[in-house]
Amino acid sequence: MKHIALVGLGVIGGTFAKAIDAHMPNTFKVTAIDKNEETLARAKEDGVIQHGEVTNQTILQDADLVIISLYPKVLKTFLETHAQDFKPGAIVTETSGIKQTMLDFIAPHIPSHVDFIFGHPMAGREKQGYNYADAAVFNKANYLITPTELNDRKNIEEFTNFLKSIGFGRVSEVTPRMHDTMIGYTSQLTHAIAVALMNSDDTSRETYKYVGDSFRDLTRIANINEYLWTELFLENKEALLESFDTFEAEMQRLKTAIQNDEVENMYDIFRQSSERRLAFEKSDSKRKD
Amino acid sequence: MKHIALVGLGVIGGTFAKAIDAHMPNTFKVTAIDKNEETLARAKEDGVIQHGEVTNQTILQDADLVIISLYPKVLKTFLETHAQDFKPGAIVTETSGIKQTMLDFIAPHIPSHVDFIFGHPMAGREKQGYNYADAAVFNKANYLITPTELNDRKNIEEFTNFLKSIGFGRVSEVTPRMHDTMIGYTSQLTHAIAVALMNSDDTSRETYKYVGDSFRDLTRIANINEYLWTELFLENKEALLESFDTFEAEMQRLKTAIQNDEVENMYDIFRQSSERRLAFEKSDSKRKD
Repeated sequence: MKHIALVGLGVIGGTFAKAIDAHMPNTFKVTAIDKNEETLARAKEDGVIQHGEVTNQTILQDADLVIISLYPKVLKTFLETHAQDFKPGAIVTETSGIKQTMLDFIAPHIPSHVDFIFGHPMAGREKQGYNYADAAVFNKANYLITPTELNDRKNIEEFTNFLKSIGFGRVSEVTPRMHDTMIGYTSQLTHAIAVALMNSDDTSRETYKYVGDSFRDLTRIANINEYLWTELFLENKEALLESFDTFEAEMQRLKTAIQNDEVENMYDIFRQSSERRLAFEKSDSKRKD
Repeated sequence: MKHIALVGLGVIGGTFAKAIDAHMPNTFKVTAIDKNEETLARAKEDGVIQHGEVTNQTILQDADLVIISLYPKVLKTFLETHAQDFKPGAIVTETSGIKQTMLDFIAPHIPSHVDFIFGHPMAGREKQGYNYADAAVFNKANYLITPTELNDRKNIEEFTNFLKSIGFGRVSEVTPRMHDTMIGYTSQLTHAIAVALMNSDDTSRETYKYVGDSFRDLTRIANINEYLWTELFLENKEALLESFDTFEAEMQRLKTAIQNDEVENMYDIFRQSSERRLAFEKSDSKRKD
């Protein structure tokens, strides 16, 4: 029986544990390393891991697949410390939200006896911690893999199949640079917008009386993990700031049209966004579970 | 049996018809006026109206409650044409997304023999038309009423009770000015943001591969009815542009922090938005159905 080790049992690692249990029960030996003993106990109680360690004792030496879901900086330290502990031939993967800087930093530390795959599940939650992990979050979700020239093709295919078998809908291989550019737009800019929208309220008002789902949807991710997202934003500063600029230009375009009562121009802007959203929905709906 | 007439059987009027049928079947006589004969036939087939007219023949003269869900400009024409057709003592209400300019325009045309209530259901859909009407959309939703000094208190209470009985969770009475200021922020700015976010994409990219729910949620309303929203934006220009400015200032605050690696400042910004969103969720969750 293959052994899967989860390093970090927060909301992402925890979701891996629960998704493996939900989709492929009794198929793997599943273990976890997490600094929080209570989390490990809870996951054992839930039956989603068989064994846990607060710091690695025996797990890394035995695991065939190691999924590391730690904050970028913690991940770097973990790899430096444990580079030699992995089992020869193991697949080791990380799940962080930025890729180029991770790759630059990690590449020199990758031990030659493992195959290190960089990946990113496009499925998060605004809440943090194992208790908010929910297997359903991975269902039909996108997963991005940024292969390096060191990766064994067979391992990437095996990992891709594993991801699909635990619920992911589409697994795409992209370059680290493209990953970061796109994530700066689809994920980081959207979080920045939600934060700014929430913070631009005047708290003396009873805003909750005046809202529909639009406001609820657009501010959901304003509840944000400040440590994680500060790291992600700063590690992807260039791409993110470019997204800011493009977005601001579009806001300005609409604002000018409103200021000058440019009705036809407003129709064009709204038609453009509607067409784009419909085209996006069409492509997005082709994810399979 | 009381007679409720729905003028305009688009997505809002249609939702009223379906919500009345879902929550209080066989309680009212329900009729509709809509320029589209097929829509009327469909609603009759669905059993949510008993009778329809393409232009008013007998409906307005008999209805005790008239709910008008037309575009602002069409609504104005409708009222000018039909001011004298309403039944004496009827409650007439409209559902448009702006209030001060509607009130300014409509007030002189309100016939003295009806009680005209200005209201706004905070529950829309990005899709238009009767076919997308869904009673569930009103469930637990907010409703805003902007009373005038001409309204009979008893009628406002009766209408409020009716709204709660067809699913609305919270019915608030506010001033037209406050309504428009808040809607400029909670609804119009959010739509503007979604439109700008969608339009700031580079369509040569396969964006659908790189998205999670954040992007899906933030762009849902980028699919927008260009005629309706152009009217709404321009009729509420001042409040909307103020919201743009406040939002832009918050985007700039975050951008500057990122540019200068101001980690503590970023933590503060994210903590502020998280606290605000959590406080908002707490108040918002108190809607009853």
